[in-house]
Amino acid sequence: MAIAFKKVKGGVCSPIGFSGGAASCGIKDPGNPRLDLALIYSKYPCVSAGTFTSNRVKAAPVKVTQAHLRTRELRAIVANSGNANACTGVPGIEDARTMAKAVAATLDLRQREVGVCSTGVIGLPLPMDRMKTGLAGLADHLSARGGSEVARAIMTSDTTVKEIAISATVGGRKVRIGACAKGAGMICPSMATMLCFVTTDANISKACLQKTLLEAVEGSFNRICIDGDMSTNDTVLLLANGLAGNGILNAKDMKIFQAALNHVCLELAKMIVHDGEGISRVVTVRVTGAKSFTEANAAARAVGNSALVKTSWSGGDPNWGRIIDALGYSPARVVEEKVDIAYSASGSRKKVYSLRQGRPTSTAFGSLCKAVEPGEFDLHINLNLGEAAAMLHAADLTEEYVDFNKGDIGDPASLGG
Amino acid sequence: MAIAFKKVKGGVCSPIGFSGGAASCGIKDPGNPRLDLALIYSKYPCVSAGTFTSNRVKAAPVKVTQAHLRTRELRAIVANSGNANACTGVPGIEDARTMAKAVAATLDLRQREVGVCSTGVIGLPLPMDRMKTGLAGLADHLSARGGSEVARAIMTSDTTVKEIAISATVGGRKVRIGACAKGAGMICPSMATMLCFVTTDANISKACLQKTLLEAVEGSFNRICIDGDMSTNDTVLLLANGLAGNGILNAKDMKIFQAALNHVCLELAKMIVHDGEGISRVVTVRVTGAKSFTEANAAARAVGNSALVKTSWSGGDPNWGRIIDALGYSPARVVEEKVDIAYSASGSRKKVYSLRQGRPTSTAFGSLCKAVEPGEFDLHINLNLGEAAAMLHAADLTEEYVDFNKGDIGDPASLGG
Repeated sequence: MAIAFKKVKGGVCSPIGFSGGAASCGIKDPGNPRLDLALIYSKYPCVSAGTFTSNRVKAAPVKVTQAHLRTRELRAIVANSGNANACTGVPGIEDARTMAKAVAATLDLRQREVGVCSTGVIGLPLPMDRMKTGLAGLADHLSARGGSEVARAIMTSDTTVKEIAISATVGGRKVRIGACAKGAGMICPSMATMLCFVTTDANISKACLQKTLLEAVEGSFNRICIDGDMSTNDTVLLLANGLAGNGILNAKDMKIFQAALNHVCLELAKMIVHDGEGISRVVTVRVTGAKSFTEANAAARAVGNSALVKTSWSGGDPNWGRIIDALGYSPARVVEEKVDIAYSASGSRKKVYSLRQGRPTSTAFGSLCKAVEPGEFDLHINLNLGEAAAMLHAADLTEEYVDFNKGDIGDPASLGG
Repeated sequence: MAIAFKKVKGGVCSPIGFSGGAASCGIKDPGNPRLDLALIYSKYPCVSAGTFTSNRVKAAPVKVTQAHLRTRELRAIVANSGNANACTGVPGIEDARTMAKAVAATLDLRQREVGVCSTGVIGLPLPMDRMKTGLAGLADHLSARGGSEVARAIMTSDTTVKEIAISATVGGRKVRIGACAKGAGMICPSMATMLCFVTTDANISKACLQKTLLEAVEGSFNRICIDGDMSTNDTVLLLANGLAGNGILNAKDMKIFQAALNHVCLELAKMIVHDGEGISRVVTVRVTGAKSFTEANAAARAVGNSALVKTSWSGGDPNWGRIIDALGYSPARVVEEKVDIAYSASGSRKKVYSLRQGRPTSTAFGSLCKAVEPGEFDLHINLNLGEAAAMLHAADLTEEYVDFNKGDIGDPASLGG
């Protein structure tokens, strides 16, 4: 079955009935106002789903939004950039609730129908005095064309706006999925915090929504790696308001919807890696022949997180020695004498092998260098032990990354994460 | 009980009956001969112990030396730098055996009484033609003052010679322990390969020797972290020839011997971290209040391996947000509201707190910056959940590290690990 969806213009407000808007409250920088407060709103009730950081240290808005999702369906999302509202204790929880409450009041919603997200510096209280005015007037900015403003307002150190929209025919109707994300972002500097908001006008059950979101996140945001640090604030929220008017989704419809959602999340995830701090290359690590997915995944992560492998990528060095070394210390079962390592252009099946069955091939060194020269390439690792596979989009490690994250000495704003 | 041992001059040949020597075979660079082949020899039979990399991809010399140790006691160690003899298949095993055999022939030993170590580039065959002449004449270089030559000959990208010797009175006699190590080393570039050779003239049983070595390695080489990559070649060997003539070691003697061996290994381990590639700061991460050692260790490693934490150290940034973030994604149990984070001068108990019970303290930002300014400082993390503790000597992550490990594009010698 050919998967029938297509890319359309717009972002998170592209589905029918959604609007968005943003304002500037001086959270990022009181002296130099930039958009730092965003709102997404559905005119009609929604079913909603979310995935959150698995970090044991969770930011206040993560805790608050998780609690809201447990008892109510979200119909609006308020998000600020410039401050993560993390490690801020009970006052931080109060501030996150205040954000939801303020938005709920202007939109005539219940407080628990509002999701709250923050991204930025860790450990500093939100400047609620400055934010309250912004929150009170935020709904005035709502517009069906406001998606891009939302996408811009959640950016921290991101250098590109990350948004996408697609349409597909499911249940006899045209259905839209729109989304925006931020990530690879550091502010002042902070975590590589990732936020993603997805909306759809599909008519879909809550259970199906959560299930499809989990699958989509697992295949996208959980498959990227910039520096191996997992944020306190990572959040993906998905709101579906049913306005497309499609009938009950059968198995084929669900497959299309899942494929479309996977595509949306994967494209945004790739945008995040490509906008990673200081990166010069993105490498898609494709591990096959593992005994289990868990092992394939562990092998891919060991390679994608290795400082030595990542620096060799930044240098354009086809350093398979470091790759097999990383495989060897990963939790995956690895038999040196069976490992194949090869490179290809992105998505191509034409491979240049550097290692076969654990031994260097006779491929000329120049050819290997050429294979790892592009800004994007695939690294194929076949453990030749089983049938399981895993994929990871990994960024290299550059001097620019280190320089970017060293922090400005003496700047209290860098005290945060 | 005061632990009674003192530092003495010399290194791995300091104990009675040991000699060492080195030669240049052009393994590192045929055009620019440097010491790259080393030999350590005990005139009298030894008991011996070893610890090896836990990487599943083990270099040929690791496999060969492990096999030798299983059936015989080592009495000599031959080591080369410039080539790791790793991922070299059956021919690599043959080459490692040839090294042992050649040395055994000139010293009238059995092949299995010789330990073999290699460090350097991964995946290239040893230049056995060039090495054979060196191996044949290597015993001629042996001298009781040859310890420093051995220490120099095993260096790769190390910038300092790493050796130490101590003496202690145990079992009624003066006993010496000598050692040398290499590490933090990259060649052309290669792994942060670690080798350490320890000798002693103590009269000690094989079982005690292995037990004390395991404890010493656990508290030293397993407590350092430069870039989180574990080599294919890591090896620590300990030879004891009994020439000190001490009687059977009682519990008190064993305690002194253990403390002395711990000291030797810890000092060498610290030398390795301080010579880490491109590092500008060494941070001793001290985790206390964990539920178990395993969790304390996991927490310390998460912090010491975090790219974001390490870059903040290089920038002199007291970034506790990144530290609590790393704690949160570590496998250790962490309750945000209980965590204390503080800094002190190396070894000092005078702490400057940045976080208490999960909340930022009122310590001035300038004071925190001052605490993380020195080239060496202690980071204290109290999880306040239990009684277990762990320590890790970690290096920062600098632009120099990345530059050093990018590799020289187009240099086939960089093809190795």
